Amino acid sequence: MSYERDNIRRMRGYTWGEQPEDADTIKLNTNENPYPPSPRVQQALDGLRTEVLRTYPQPTAEPLRRRLADLHGLAPEHVLVTHGGDEGLRLAMTTFVDPGATFAMADPSYSLYPVLAAVQDARVFTVPLDEAWRLPGDAAERLNGAGARLTCVVNPHAPSGVLTPADAIERLAEALDGVLLVDEAYVDFVDPARQHDLTPLVRRHANLLLLRTFSKGYSLAGLRLGYLLGHPGLIEPMLTKTRDSYNVDAISQALGDAAAADQDYARRTWDAVRTARAALAGGLAQLGIASVPSESNFLLAKIPPAAGITARDLYQRLKDGGILVRYFAAPRLDDCLRISVGTPEQNQRLIEAVTEAIHDRATD
Amino acid sequence: MSYERDNIRRMRGYTWGEQPEDADTIKLNTNENPYPPSPRVQQALDGLRTEVLRTYPQPTAEPLRRRLADLHGLAPEHVLVTHGGDEGLRLAMTTFVDPGATFAMADPSYSLYPVLAAVQDARVFTVPLDEAWRLPGDAAERLNGAGARLTCVVNPHAPSGVLTPADAIERLAEALDGVLLVDEAYVDFVDPARQHDLTPLVRRHANLLLLRTFSKGYSLAGLRLGYLLGHPGLIEPMLTKTRDSYNVDAISQALGDAAAADQDYARRTWDAVRTARAALAGGLAQLGIASVPSESNFLLAKIPPAAGITARDLYQRLKDGGILVRYFAAPRLDDCLRISVGTPEQNQRLIEAVTEAIHDRATD
Repeated sequence: MSYERDNIRRMRGYTWGEQPEDADTIKLNTNENPYPPSPRVQQALDGLRTEVLRTYPQPTAEPLRRRLADLHGLAPEHVLVTHGGDEGLRLAMTTFVDPGATFAMADPSYSLYPVLAAVQDARVFTVPLDEAWRLPGDAAERLNGAGARLTCVVNPHAPSGVLTPADAIERLAEALDGVLLVDEAYVDFVDPARQHDLTPLVRRHANLLLLRTFSKGYSLAGLRLGYLLGHPGLIEPMLTKTRDSYNVDAISQALGDAAAADQDYARRTWDAVRTARAALAGGLAQLGIASVPSESNFLLAKIPPAAGITARDLYQRLKDGGILVRYFAAPRLDDCLRISVGTPEQNQRLIEAVTEAIHDRATD
Repeated sequence: MSYERDNIRRMRGYTWGEQPEDADTIKLNTNENPYPPSPRVQQALDGLRTEVLRTYPQPTAEPLRRRLADLHGLAPEHVLVTHGGDEGLRLAMTTFVDPGATFAMADPSYSLYPVLAAVQDARVFTVPLDEAWRLPGDAAERLNGAGARLTCVVNPHAPSGVLTPADAIERLAEALDGVLLVDEAYVDFVDPARQHDLTPLVRRHANLLLLRTFSKGYSLAGLRLGYLLGHPGLIEPMLTKTRDSYNVDAISQALGDAAAADQDYARRTWDAVRTARAALAGGLAQLGIASVPSESNFLLAKIPPAAGITARDLYQRLKDGGILVRYFAAPRLDDCLRISVGTPEQNQRLIEAVTEAIHDRATD
């Protein structure tokens, strides 16, 4: 006898990236920041007394909420602090998509989205990205035609790293009948010269949500901290109704505040990642491996037939050598590897390992 | 234009207990443990380096899961570690109750239950407790008749503190067609002489879930950590499908492990709470205020007409004097106060304040 709901029994769960316990592994598979969190986070941690954990945390993470509002030139009413970005995605699904209604996403995209839709028993409508990994020009028409109540768009896109500019996002928000959630997990790594900033749009569009995370930009994936920015009409039901009552623990509130307060440090890690990204792309290109121009902290590298080794085999070969990257057994992606940008030393080790793998095949 | 689902727009959210920022307030309103966490939790915190936060946490909190399984004589497959007890409740709702299907609870009970049901768009069926705050003898028949897919029972009950013995719980689990979740948030405070232990039942009943929390027994409400114990057939879909992928952060895993490892310390705080509970009940009785015999860390105290002050006014009077207790404007409860057991000093301050309030009214 099964007690599960039918939709839960039928669905498959999310497959998370490998998390090796071996500290020697070079982990370029889950897009973590290669640099540690700000020293101010360690200072905040050192100052914590566990006595504060005896009582419930501030229910809405208000001090951190205010800091994030200030950081983006918004009001606290525009901000919902969440237990990782994943909670923000789940809350949007729970709050805006009825069971049986339509959730929409680009294809390919974050593989968690259809899992969350399946839990909610929502239909999934996908819009295939074009050759340049962008939404097609008639995306809004198709999304409205499908009755999408919520559309999630990762920007910069994963796994390609391609950035859709603000004006295109704004046109999409304007045209959509439902809610548009722009998943900005990787936005901190966009070249500042582009002056890309969607945050002013949340004041102008009642259907726009931006998702941010501390996991990548602030090197705090282990902490589970993120936030949504949006019109108060979207934020309020998630804040007061659908989230768990005390969704952000006291330590995360304190450490997140310390991390957000040290923008200088964070920006230096973003700069370093961009520099390393360019070097890594150059190194791969010298091996004949092209990667998509990325505004994120990873590269989607296409393994050409001339390499003499398939993407899947190269993934396994790297793994055997202690370097984890991500391989997707999916259309359009199965000849690619998604490689998180590591430190210059880690990237060098990767380049060497790829060089060896290609060379070995060539001399087999 | 509203983007919320209809059921979300219609519902009301959870009202959390007051969380004063003033450290001088005596906080006897949200059933926290009056004693700090184990010193080993502080040691674990002191040993943490924020570098570990750079990467994602262990996805299933496996070391802590194994420790909890060992603690209860169960297998890891019987355990799901959660982000507070609230997540366990939400996951049970998400996994086992279809929208439109029936969720059931005793009345009165934890006010979060109907909120979670409303988010899931489930019907709520309530079974009124009898005069002794126990489920009536025909509860199972009524619950099955209502088609309850999930029934939540707080045991020891809140807000009365009454314990339903294991044999009665087992009979209920046997009789129910749906899942029975026993919310054991307060079970650590049960008198050990009762030898009350439901954990062996999870091996025998495929429809039984036990919910535990670190918030009360381990003084870690600020950390948001709990767990479910149950048949692997119930645990598995929540573990692999409906929970957020990384639901427990790295720090909570480490500190929870340290707390669970120090059972001696935890037991001493539980003993101290029981001793203080008896003294508090005695002190109230001397003022003519009877309380329900409690196996929890709070007392439901009935303010008699002879006190010359209503429960609501006494709540406000205590609050004005810096002592928070909980008042419920609800049938059967509106002449009562729920008072968390504090330290002996806090309880003495409460008794003094109640004495003054009653005396002032008598001499008005």
